Amino acid sequence: MSQTFQSRIYVTLRPSVLDPAGTAVESGLKQLGYQGVGGVRIGKYIELTLSAENEERAREQLDLICDRFLANPVIENYRFELTPISSPASVE
Amino acid sequence: MSQTFQSRIYVTLRPSVLDPAGTAVESGLKQLGYQGVGGVRIGKYIELTLSAENEERAREQLDLICDRFLANPVIENYRFELTPISSPASVE
Repeated sequence: MSQTFQSRIYVTLRPSVLDPAGTAVESGLKQLGYQGVGGVRIGKYIELTLSAENEERAREQLDLICDRFLANPVIENYRFELTPISSPASVE
Repeated sequence: MSQTFQSRIYVTLRPSVLDPAGTAVESGLKQLGYQGVGGVRIGKYIELTLSAENEERAREQLDLICDRFLANPVIENYRFELTPISSPASVE
């Protein structure tokens, strides 16, 4: 019996890593007249569904997926949120 | 007197728009053996600080910034969260 989870993953550059894309957006915004903007950092936002026996197993799997595939652990951090979509007992 | 806000912006492709990057990640994950993964959608996650007179003005400005600069309204949706960092009364 498996359960399905909706997951939202946020991959961001480590604070110590320069963010050229963020810097470019920041200077572009200032040129457009938005003076009050600062600290622009750009990352990835990934949504996916995941089936697993339970939430703990889903967390383990998602950790592996993020660590090996979605984020570069040398320069990026990741965090995620998991929301159950279907409960195990909902088998028709 | 202005206030500073931390904002988190999520730019995602509209549901009707194909997501080749998401599809590629999904098939890659399946080839790596993660069968339970589906519905992969990849978007942008942007953090920035914004100074404005009050929260309402900050929301208006961020809407303009997202609409004109950070998201392509034809194919993308955006949403954002605003958190006050400094209160107006905190002037030393």
